[in-house]
Amino acid sequence: MSLLVTNIGELVTNDGPVRSDAALVIEGGRIAWIGPAGSAPAADEMLDAQGRAALPGFVDSHTHLVFAGDRAGEFAARMAGQRYTGGGIRTTVAATQAASDDELRATAARLVREALQQGTTTIEIKSGYGLSVPDETRCLRIAGEFTTETTFLGAHVVPASFAGRADEYVALACGEMLDAAVPYARWVDVFCEPGAAFDADQARAVLAAGVAAGLAPRVHANQLGPGPGVQVAVELGAASADHCTHLSPADIDALAGSSTVATLLPAAEFSTRSAYPPARRLLDAGVTVALATDCNPGSSYTTSMPFCIALAVREMGMTPAEAVWAATAGGARALRRDDIGVLRPGARADLVLLDAPSHVHLAYRPGVPLVSTVLHNGVPI
Amino acid sequence: MSLLVTNIGELVTNDGPVRSDAALVIEGGRIAWIGPAGSAPAADEMLDAQGRAALPGFVDSHTHLVFAGDRAGEFAARMAGQRYTGGGIRTTVAATQAASDDELRATAARLVREALQQGTTTIEIKSGYGLSVPDETRCLRIAGEFTTETTFLGAHVVPASFAGRADEYVALACGEMLDAAVPYARWVDVFCEPGAAFDADQARAVLAAGVAAGLAPRVHANQLGPGPGVQVAVELGAASADHCTHLSPADIDALAGSSTVATLLPAAEFSTRSAYPPARRLLDAGVTVALATDCNPGSSYTTSMPFCIALAVREMGMTPAEAVWAATAGGARALRRDDIGVLRPGARADLVLLDAPSHVHLAYRPGVPLVSTVLHNGVPI
Repeated sequence: MSLLVTNIGELVTNDGPVRSDAALVIEGGRIAWIGPAGSAPAADEMLDAQGRAALPGFVDSHTHLVFAGDRAGEFAARMAGQRYTGGGIRTTVAATQAASDDELRATAARLVREALQQGTTTIEIKSGYGLSVPDETRCLRIAGEFTTETTFLGAHVVPASFAGRADEYVALACGEMLDAAVPYARWVDVFCEPGAAFDADQARAVLAAGVAAGLAPRVHANQLGPGPGVQVAVELGAASADHCTHLSPADIDALAGSSTVATLLPAAEFSTRSAYPPARRLLDAGVTVALATDCNPGSSYTTSMPFCIALAVREMGMTPAEAVWAATAGGARALRRDDIGVLRPGARADLVLLDAPSHVHLAYRPGVPLVSTVLHNGVPI
Repeated sequence: MSLLVTNIGELVTNDGPVRSDAALVIEGGRIAWIGPAGSAPAADEMLDAQGRAALPGFVDSHTHLVFAGDRAGEFAARMAGQRYTGGGIRTTVAATQAASDDELRATAARLVREALQQGTTTIEIKSGYGLSVPDETRCLRIAGEFTTETTFLGAHVVPASFAGRADEYVALACGEMLDAAVPYARWVDVFCEPGAAFDADQARAVLAAGVAAGLAPRVHANQLGPGPGVQVAVELGAASADHCTHLSPADIDALAGSSTVATLLPAAEFSTRSAYPPARRLLDAGVTVALATDCNPGSSYTTSMPFCIALAVREMGMTPAEAVWAATAGGARALRRDDIGVLRPGARADLVLLDAPSHVHLAYRPGVPLVSTVLHNGVPI
């Protein structure tokens, strides 16, 4: 069964220049052919894009979707002037520990569906609201029902029950908790933020243990202030350093000289009323930049990659083309994937059609739900 | 035929405190009853809100929806550093003059539908991209196919054909153009912005002529810099001074001592990378504040009132409750309407249900299309 998508007014492939009047053929969930609409081969079925713009499905490489409860009250207090310190994570931990599997699954399912309807065809999901051996394990197991990109973030914060005993908690996260998590995780992550979460040595220990157990590393780095997170990420060859809000010139140099992607999460700065990451400086230094939502109930409760693109353009000096690339191909690099975030023969047929003639409209028309059709593995949803 | 909407988890009425576990009955397109879900009267049909939040439909009191073409290229250039001067309006004027009625109608219909799907149940539409007697008239005639809140904005900018002869253009806008517009307009508006558009005396002339012809005044005031717009608006008893981006203490005092609403359009500041209006100072001074989209293809191409609410909270220090009030009841005041923006017996049954438990989520979940059901004149759309 093959599907011809034709009359694409503007096609962003991330594999060569933007095409106009394009078509593509999908077969077996993969792209089989891309070319001018006028010379498209026959196919079993046809989808007429009617001149709309098309681009790869968004790759949201940083979310925390397995949780219970919401923190609307904390949000309102913060908007009334209270500073975000990350301390509210423990509120969600308590709610998550108290929730049933079915409650956690229902919330995750709702958010994954919400994201998919807005064009997110690949989503990474972290644990990190369990913070006990059984709760981290079940959060990862539930995450795995929705994606293969699961991340063990046992070292999110030191749980209340380990107050004053951070090193003991790190030993747990490097030992029994890690062992239980490994069957359900692809990645290991740590919130490296001395003072609020874990310091450099603790972060190194968590990542090294994860790597030794077969997981690939990524790091929450330099979110709340300057710190060692980016350097640790580069040192350990992490696929991505996420947040990157407070960077020194040496941090930018380190990223530029590495294969570590800088994953920027501007919706978190939006929802915590913080200064935005220096995307322009990163791009100008040659760093690979990804955009992701950071979807979580505390600091960034959005699933909308188009919103992140609009913010990246308004607030971080990215061009619309750079922001769209970062939200698709950039996310794929941050997950070390070459089958997504790009449209070329052999790649996954993850595709978004916009109610707009150009990708520029994702930034030009902020807040408007422009994603009109999503194809996931070649199937319209 | 009556409709019972029940199991409303949180009901914002703008007519007393927020209710929980509420219900309402709609009959003949109006609210007939509001009260606790447990004591709701019988009705012919029932809509189960399943615990979701409900609020009045949004009142978007400032849009420019009758136009042709888009200005995505100008937007991208501005995001690359070019400053917004309002000069691009003439690009849209040329495209609008060249378009057929059906083209203008199709674009307006698409945007009105897009707005309605995001919860906007009342929309104001201005002319201002015609700038000739026949083109202003037909733009208003087309606007009137979508709303009763039509505004004659012949004095948007001085058209290229009148370059250097602004006073002659003002005379036209106060004479023949106004006469032709009056049958199709409720309001008269002027872009009072010395240097970029019209000065105080020109604005007074336009507004006074409109009032003499039976229209009610509103003003584009103090958008690009400090200026006389707000003072002119208050002096002439305008229903609203719109933009209010650059205000002096005297401007705020004048608004506070008047019945003129300050209509803030933060999506314009978002899309022109400008500083935001001083909403907090206005509210603290006792000024009535409305939020609207300013939807237009140059400086704010969004139809999303939820996006404006999120911006108002993030960028202007408004609480979620203040922002929701401004986007509903505030807009109604800016249009001098008491039948919309409020839910009480006798008011129009314009109602939005959110995929969320609280109105706070409109700011807490930015970019997410939370509006799940819209009732317009009592009819689910």
